[in-house]
Amino acid sequence: MPMNTSNQRYQRGLEKLREIDGDAGQRVIDSLQDIAPDFARYLIEFPFGDIYSRPGLDLKSREIAVVAALTAMGNATPQLKVHLQAALNVGVSREEIVETIMQMAVYAGFPAALNGLAAAREVFAQN
Amino acid sequence: MPMNTSNQRYQRGLEKLREIDGDAGQRVIDSLQDIAPDFARYLIEFPFGDIYSRPGLDLKSREIAVVAALTAMGNATPQLKVHLQAALNVGVSREEIVETIMQMAVYAGFPAALNGLAAAREVFAQN
Amino acid sequence: MPMNTSNQRYQRGLEKLREIDGDAGQRVIDSLQDIAPDFARYLIEFPFGDIYSRPGLDLKSREIAVVAALTAMGNATPQLKVHLQAALNVGVSREEIVETIMQMAVYAGFPAALNGLAAAREVFAQN
Amino acid sequence: MPMNTSNQRYQRGLEKLREIDGDAGQRVIDSLQDIAPDFARYLIEFPFGDIYSRPGLDLKSREIAVVAALTAMGNATPQLKVHLQAALNVGVSREEIVETIMQMAVYAGFPAALNGLAAAREVFAQN
Amino acid sequence: MPMNTSNQRYQRGLEKLREIDGDAGQRVIDSLQDIAPDFARYLIEFPFGDIYSRPGLDLKSREIAVVAALTAMGNATPQLKVHLQAALNVGVSREEIVETIMQMAVYAGFPAALNGLAAAREVFAQN
Amino acid sequence: MPMNTSNQRYQRGLEKLREIDGDAGQRVIDSLQDIAPDFARYLIEFPFGDIYSRPGLDLKSREIAVVAALTAMGNATPQLKVHLQAALNVGVSREEIVETIMQMAVYAGFPAALNGLAAAREVFAQN
Repeated sequence: MPMNTSNQRYQRGLEKLREIDGDAGQRVIDSLQDIAPDFARYLIEFPFGDIYSRPGLDLKSREIAVVAALTAMGNATPQLKVHLQAALNVGVSREEIVETIMQMAVYAGFPAALNGLAAAREVFAQN
Repeated sequence: MPMNTSNQRYQRGLEKLREIDGDAGQRVIDSLQDIAPDFARYLIEFPFGDIYSRPGLDLKSREIAVVAALTAMGNATPQLKVHLQAALNVGVSREEIVETIMQMAVYAGFPAALNGLAAAREVFAQN
Repeated sequence: MPMNTSNQRYQRGLEKLREIDGDAGQRVIDSLQDIAPDFARYLIEFPFGDIYSRPGLDLKSREIAVVAALTAMGNATPQLKVHLQAALNVGVSREEIVETIMQMAVYAGFPAALNGLAAAREVFAQN
Repeated sequence: MPMNTSNQRYQRGLEKLREIDGDAGQRVIDSLQDIAPDFARYLIEFPFGDIYSRPGLDLKSREIAVVAALTAMGNATPQLKVHLQAALNVGVSREEIVETIMQMAVYAGFPAALNGLAAAREVFAQN
Repeated sequence: MPMNTSNQRYQRGLEKLREIDGDAGQRVIDSLQDIAPDFARYLIEFPFGDIYSRPGLDLKSREIAVVAALTAMGNATPQLKVHLQAALNVGVSREEIVETIMQMAVYAGFPAALNGLAAAREVFAQN
Repeated sequence: MPMNTSNQRYQRGLEKLREIDGDAGQRVIDSLQDIAPDFARYLIEFPFGDIYSRPGLDLKSREIAVVAALTAMGNATPQLKVHLQAALNVGVSREEIVETIMQMAVYAGFPAALNGLAAAREVFAQN
C-alpha cells in the first residue's frame, strides 16, 4: 500500500478534476462549500485522486463509460452534462458521443437515449 | 435512406453478433426460438445489424460502454456476463474491464461495482 | 368517503387476491406470517382490497400494466412470475404477454425484455 | 422471414407513429435531425415499424403498458407525456389512465404514482 | 385483526401527515383532488394511517430511511424535498440529513448524493 | 484539510469495517484480492475510513439508511444481506429492521419490500 498523504490524493485529484471537467468541475466543488465541504474533498480525493488517476484505462474510454452509464441510469442529468463536456475535453469526438448514447437505446431503452441526446445537444451548443 | 432489405440487416447483424458475442450470442438467439422467434430476429437486426454495424465508434469502446451501463444498472446480470465475454472477444483487456467496473463505484455505488466484479471473475475463469 | 371497516377491505382483498393470483398469492401471504404478519394484511388490504377492486380498469389491462412495469424495472423477478401467472389467470393470452414483454425492449432495453421472456418461459412451462 | 425493404418498415413506422403519437411524435423526430438523424430513422423503424405494427396486442393495451412502465421507471417524464397523449389518441379513457398510474403505487411506490399523476394532469389540460 | 373503520385510519393518517409533513403534505393532498381524489385518500390511509402510525420505529429513523431511499433512487425529487422538510419537522438535524445523503454516495453513487445535497440546500434555505 | 496518511484511513476503515460488518465484511475484502485488490483498499478507505468514521450520524441510523436504500434499489441483494447483518451488529433490533423494510413499500413498491423481507428472513435465521 502506498504511503500517500491525504494531501497528495487531494492535489492529484484536483489536477485531474481540472484536466477532465474544467470549470464545470470547479463549480460543483464550489457549490458544496456551504452545505457539505467535506463531500467536496471526498469528491476530489476518491473519484479523481484515486479512480481517474489510475493508469489501466485511458481517459477517453473512462468518459465513454461514464456517458454510457449516466445515459442508461437516466436520473442524473446535471452530472451527465458535466461528463458530456468532460468527454469533449479529453478528446472524445461528437460523433463518438452520439454513438455511445444511441447504443444505450439497446440496453436502457429509447427514452434513455432520447434524453441523453437532448443533453448532448445542449452541451454541444455551448462549445 | 439506404434501400437495405431486412435480409441484409439480418445477415449483417448475424455476422456482427458472431464477431462480438460468439457462442453466447447464438445461445441467446436459440433460447428465444420457442417463445419469441421474432424477438430473436429483432435482436439480430436492430442492435447488431443497425447499431453495432455503425462506423462512428470502435467495437472496443462500444463494449466498454455496455459493460459500464449494465454494471451501473445492476439488474441484467446474464447480459452483463455475455458482454464481459464480448469485451474480451473484441480486444478489451482484463485490466481495462476491471477499471471500467471499478469506476462505476463512483457513478452507481460500491454494490454495483462489487456485483460487476463478481460477474467478471466468473467470466474470466472460463477463459 | 365510504365507511368500510378494515375487515371489509380485508375480505374483499382476500377474494380479489385469490381471483387474480390463486395459489401463488396465498404462498406470498403465508411466507410473511413469521417475519411480518401485518405486512401480509397490508398486502391484502391496499393492493387487492383497494386498488384491484376498483372498477375503472379491467383486470386484463391491470395485469398487462403490471407485467410491463415489472419487466421494465427488472429487479423483481419473483413478483413478475407471480403476475405472469396472474395475467394468464385473468385471461391475458400467451401471445399478449409475449407482446407486452417484447415491447419493453423499446422502453427499458433488450436485457429487460430478454429477462422478462425468460420468466415467461418458466411460467408458461408450469401451465 | 419477410423480405421487407427498410423503406417498407420506415413507411409503415411513420404511419403508425402518426396514428399513435400524432404531432408529438413528429416533434421528437424533428428534434433529432440536427444531432442524430439516423436515430430518428431507427425510432420510426424499430419501435413503430416493427413493434407497434405487430398484430398480437391491441394499441390500447400497448399504451397502457407503456404508461405503466414509464410511470414505474420514473426517469423519462418527456416520453411519459408523449405516451399519455398517445394513450388518449388510441382510445384509452382518462379514467383508465388514472387507474393505470395509481396502480403503479403498488409496484413502484407512491412517489412514482404521484409524479405520473402530475404528468397526466398536464397532458389532460391540453386536451 | 383490529376492527378499524376506514374512517379511523383516515383520521389517524391525516393527523400523522400533518405532524410529519405539515403544509407540504396538505399541498400534495390538495393537488390530487381534481385528478385522483381517491388516491389522496389512499395516500393518507396507507402510508400515514397504517405505516407511519406503527410503534416499532421512531419518526426520526423513519425519515432518515426515506431521505436515504429517495436520494438513492434519484427519480423522485419533489417527494425527496417533502421528506427533507419532514425530517427537519420530526427532529432530524441538518447535520444528520447531510450525513445521510453523503452516505448514499457509497451505495448509489456520487451523482445521487450530489443531487440529494442540492435538494437539501433548497429546503434548508426555506427554513 | 487534515494531513491523514492513506495508511491511517486504511487502519481506521479496517477497524470500522470489522465493527460494523464483522466476518461478512472481511469475506467481501478477501473475495476481491484476486481480481481487484485496489478496490478492496478503496472499499476500506472511502466508505469505512471516511464515511462511516464521521461523527455526525450514529451507526444505528447509518445502517437503517443503508437497509432502506438497498431495499428500495432492489438490485443489490448480496450487499443488502451484509447490511442486514451489520444493522443487527450495531444494535438495530429485528423489529426496527422489519419496520424499515415495510416502509419501503410506500416509496419503492411492494415487490421491493417483499424481497427485502425475504433477505431479512434469511439473515435472521443465521443469528
